[in-house]
Amino acid sequence: MGTGSKNRIITLTTDFGSRDHYSGSLKGAILSINPKATITDISHEIPSYDIAQGAITLASCYHLFPRQTIHVGVVDPGVGSERLPIVIETDRYFFVGPDNGLFSLAAPKSAIRGIRHLENQKYFRSDISDTFHGRDLFAPVAAHLSRGVPIRNFGGPLKAIHRLELFQVTLTDKKIRSQVVSIDKFGNAITGITGTLFQKHIGRRRFQVKVGSHTIHQLCRTYSEAPPGMPVMVIASNNLLEMALYQGNLASLWQLKVGQDVTVKIKEFI
Amino acid sequence: MGTGSKNRIITLTTDFGSRDHYSGSLKGAILSINPKATITDISHEIPSYDIAQGAITLASCYHLFPRQTIHVGVVDPGVGSERLPIVIETDRYFFVGPDNGLFSLAAPKSAIRGIRHLENQKYFRSDISDTFHGRDLFAPVAAHLSRGVPIRNFGGPLKAIHRLELFQVTLTDKKIRSQVVSIDKFGNAITGITGTLFQKHIGRRRFQVKVGSHTIHQLCRTYSEAPPGMPVMVIASNNLLEMALYQGNLASLWQLKVGQDVTVKIKEFI
Amino acid sequence: MGTGSKNRIITLTTDFGSRDHYSGSLKGAILSINPKATITDISHEIPSYDIAQGAITLASCYHLFPRQTIHVGVVDPGVGSERLPIVIETDRYFFVGPDNGLFSLAAPKSAIRGIRHLENQKYFRSDISDTFHGRDLFAPVAAHLSRGVPIRNFGGPLKAIHRLELFQVTLTDKKIRSQVVSIDKFGNAITGITGTLFQKHIGRRRFQVKVGSHTIHQLCRTYSEAPPGMPVMVIASNNLLEMALYQGNLASLWQLKVGQDVTVKIKEFI
Repeated sequence: MGTGSKNRIITLTTDFGSRDHYSGSLKGAILSINPKATITDISHEIPSYDIAQGAITLASCYHLFPRQTIHVGVVDPGVGSERLPIVIETDRYFFVGPDNGLFSLAAPKSAIRGIRHLENQKYFRSDISDTFHGRDLFAPVAAHLSRGVPIRNFGGPLKAIHRLELFQVTLTDKKIRSQVVSIDKFGNAITGITGTLFQKHIGRRRFQVKVGSHTIHQLCRTYSEAPPGMPVMVIASNNLLEMALYQGNLASLWQLKVGQDVTVKIKEFI
Repeated sequence: MGTGSKNRIITLTTDFGSRDHYSGSLKGAILSINPKATITDISHEIPSYDIAQGAITLASCYHLFPRQTIHVGVVDPGVGSERLPIVIETDRYFFVGPDNGLFSLAAPKSAIRGIRHLENQKYFRSDISDTFHGRDLFAPVAAHLSRGVPIRNFGGPLKAIHRLELFQVTLTDKKIRSQVVSIDKFGNAITGITGTLFQKHIGRRRFQVKVGSHTIHQLCRTYSEAPPGMPVMVIASNNLLEMALYQGNLASLWQLKVGQDVTVKIKEFI
Repeated sequence: MGTGSKNRIITLTTDFGSRDHYSGSLKGAILSINPKATITDISHEIPSYDIAQGAITLASCYHLFPRQTIHVGVVDPGVGSERLPIVIETDRYFFVGPDNGLFSLAAPKSAIRGIRHLENQKYFRSDISDTFHGRDLFAPVAAHLSRGVPIRNFGGPLKAIHRLELFQVTLTDKKIRSQVVSIDKFGNAITGITGTLFQKHIGRRRFQVKVGSHTIHQLCRTYSEAPPGMPVMVIASNNLLEMALYQGNLASLWQLKVGQDVTVKIKEFI
């Protein structure tokens, strides 16, 4: 790659929070190697140690960035242990972080062009801690990548990345079963059911969504289409079916939790 | 505009929060169209659906940015419904977002040079959702603006923007009445009364501010001028009169709320 | 300095929070003077008025940034009062902010090349408030610095900066005494004892750490090395000894507080 690659974009998705020095440390470590990198925060508020939420957050937006964007993900409870530090090259992007399932959704098998174990200390900070590989390995590697270093330089090849089964969707004639996979700031509860699957199997038939002791009967195109005070289903912007309450907070009203079962029944079979 | 406009500044003011992918999605959508845009977060922590707080936040800082800065505002409970997506050009800035009152303060009538309805799908993301116009309309339009596309290209002209009356100020010989319009992170309660109005009508006369069952008698130039533990009035940096407690949190101590009445009485009439 | 300095990096460490316009106002004030400055947030979530936490946060990451980075710190309860606004030049960096102890750790005496009182109004915003020097003094001065203005232009020289004793470490044959100096987002409780000191005085001997009514007996290299559910000591990435609970939140479990005494006893003397 030529010099044009020097101001490539590096995104950050971590559970570091916004209060401490951690995200600032990542940025310093990147900028000290490539002061022209464009650093873009995706989120530093992934719940602590929650690899699944990190994976879902990254999956919801990594594809919006320009080709060759470098996505750094650090939700890394096993830092310093046997989980490997890796870089992944896909047909469009790079991913740098721990091999613990964080890239399960954003780096599907079919898109992967190469995976490398980060071994070459030449590309690390000189004094590596055992507790902050974000600063000492991942940030420097991302910065070197942004300057055009090819992934083969970072270490030996790996055959596959660690994948987490983040949620299940089971489908029968009569129903679709899945879980609440995420709850957003607005209290919308996002399920593992894609809009595509819902449209194909339910279409315009009447349906009933059950979550705990609650039910929803209506699919709306927008939040504001919902009758006042009535929870509805919406196909969210990341193409996942979600439960929402217009101008309210449904997750808090119904005390919904990530991992909770969600069932969509086709009405004619109820 | 020439090529020099390509790294123009785009600011973001939203109620998306910092936890989910939403603000990252906005940034990806902008950078995929203009990788050289300078994206600057103003706030993603506007309370959910609170158009008034979004309007006040934007109004407090939009004017500090360089000419031609593009301010994107997304507090958009009516997304996908009849509220129009718009771009505004003023004598110094651009504003992109929903026409729901969010730009009531930052785009005064006298400054407006043009308003356009965002209609031209050529400038949208190809697959527009009904629930996330921030990503699919506003971010792409802002990115195209930053590359020099004139506002007339985005759609037909509009005569006026939707304006919210965000707070009232009523003035009599004896008093000024207004409300708490915002409470900041420090617990300062900002009123709708400008410092200019206060200085003109109260000047150096003795006064009494009433809020709920509490009263304040003193105006200080700085927070630290206040006697220890005594709530005082200060003319805040955005030229609004505010109630403050040095090194304390007055809003939490007095349980102040946005919207609460505030009355300033001139002492000689009390 | 040449024109190459025009896109120098400016970092921000403040207690402004992420909700209000304050951090956006800083950025606007900087960009209006130098639109090419690379602005990097370290933290805006320093607890309100907490100079010590600001100093510790800055100290944990300022050294990771490239040479000539300009670090702006604004935790400024005394804004507008007698505390001086200053700029510091060290052998590698610049610091801009209030002279209240915020730079006690990041600008050690031995590194300082010059200190100036910010007096020259030519480099301030034209209309200076008494309550927001971040926007009106510090941001503009940082922006001018980033364009190559030498520090002598900003005002008269000062001999020393205000230093806070942020924490104590006392050492005897039998023990090391210090305090909890910070609690991070993960609930790790960071002490004032450096890893270097601990290694030198305890080394491989058995030890006991006491905090309140609780004790810890084990030092781990990484968080995940800890036996499940057992609090351990770790030498954190900023070389301070910290108490941690793998995948848990120790500070909340043990109700630890900043300032609390921590004692490390060598086991043979217990």
